[in-house]
Amino acid sequence: MNGHIAGAEIERLIQLLAKLPGLGPRSARRAALHLIKKKEQVLRPLGAALTEALDKIVTCETCGNVDTISPCTICSDTRRDPSIICVVEDVADLWALERAHAHKGRYHVLGGTLSALDGIGPDDLNLSSLIEQASSEGVVEIMLATNATVEGQTTAHYITDRLQETGVKVSRLAHGVPVGGELDYLDDGTLAAAVTARRPF
Amino acid sequence: MNGHIAGAEIERLIQLLAKLPGLGPRSARRAALHLIKKKEQVLRPLGAALTEALDKIVTCETCGNVDTISPCTICSDTRRDPSIICVVEDVADLWALERAHAHKGRYHVLGGTLSALDGIGPDDLNLSSLIEQASSEGVVEIMLATNATVEGQTTAHYITDRLQETGVKVSRLAHGVPVGGELDYLDDGTLAAAVTARRPF
Repeated sequence: MNGHIAGAEIERLIQLLAKLPGLGPRSARRAALHLIKKKEQVLRPLGAALTEALDKIVTCETCGNVDTISPCTICSDTRRDPSIICVVEDVADLWALERAHAHKGRYHVLGGTLSALDGIGPDDLNLSSLIEQASSEGVVEIMLATNATVEGQTTAHYITDRLQETGVKVSRLAHGVPVGGELDYLDDGTLAAAVTARRPF
Repeated sequence: MNGHIAGAEIERLIQLLAKLPGLGPRSARRAALHLIKKKEQVLRPLGAALTEALDKIVTCETCGNVDTISPCTICSDTRRDPSIICVVEDVADLWALERAHAHKGRYHVLGGTLSALDGIGPDDLNLSSLIEQASSEGVVEIMLATNATVEGQTTAHYITDRLQETGVKVSRLAHGVPVGGELDYLDDGTLAAAVTARRPF
């Protein structure tokens, strides 16, 4: 991309930065230049943070979250309700729910969704340990918080089927008008769902 | 931003990634998660590339370019014409000209533009060595390739004034219709410049 302009080291740095989501070749070049210019303020700390992350960050064996300990901070927090497990597709979704302080129980990270197109079946997801946990005593409710996409909903349906034998209560997030949302800008599906699920005022 | 969700290490990684140009808090979280998930494929090589960049990359003492050697690859390339020096604001502009194979001479990186608003004066730019070089024998032409912004053009005018006493030839990039550009979408200033600078067909 840069051809023979700069050293192979800069070229390699740009290529690696371009692999990050949200960074294309152009923004990767800008980021690399920013790093090179601010060696002490940005490059050195980022390098150290990456090394530390490499050494310390692990995947929680219980829920699939990422943390420096396993079981993770959430799984080992005794103040959290162990009877309700929130199932999410990805760690990013767990972070979003935590930022919203929306859930006081435990989590379970699937690590993806079922997808016939991408060839992702039940065995490719972090599912068996969820079924196991759901069968154990102390777990009362499984809240499915997969995305409201076709894949997310398909996955939710599949998990509901698998959980039927365990007798655990299965719930899913409500669909409706986003808080602050204007009706005029909403899609038909969301509007219809909001009307169907209307509640007494 | 993430609060108490994950370890301080992840939080710190997100904060450092968010300092890169083009990455906001949201995309920094996505990037951090991507790094953590692809430890061996992405995180480890990027960490190594940063360490290598920290150790090896230097600023060229002659032109202000970044490279692993000083004088840089361009300055020490004997096949390049040392009689014409192209003045750019930033290393990114040098890279852009090199990608276009637009210039076969040397470069000089100013490291910014004059800006009364930001309090950047002539002494804050890499200028004195340019004047020095221009006075030396062997330099015939200084091509000003600062951006076509108010700051860029102000800087170009200032440099032209400073270079007057050296007697060197000073040129600047042509303004006009971008190749592939449609007239209907061009701003008035560019169109006017293109008409003024029209050439025989």
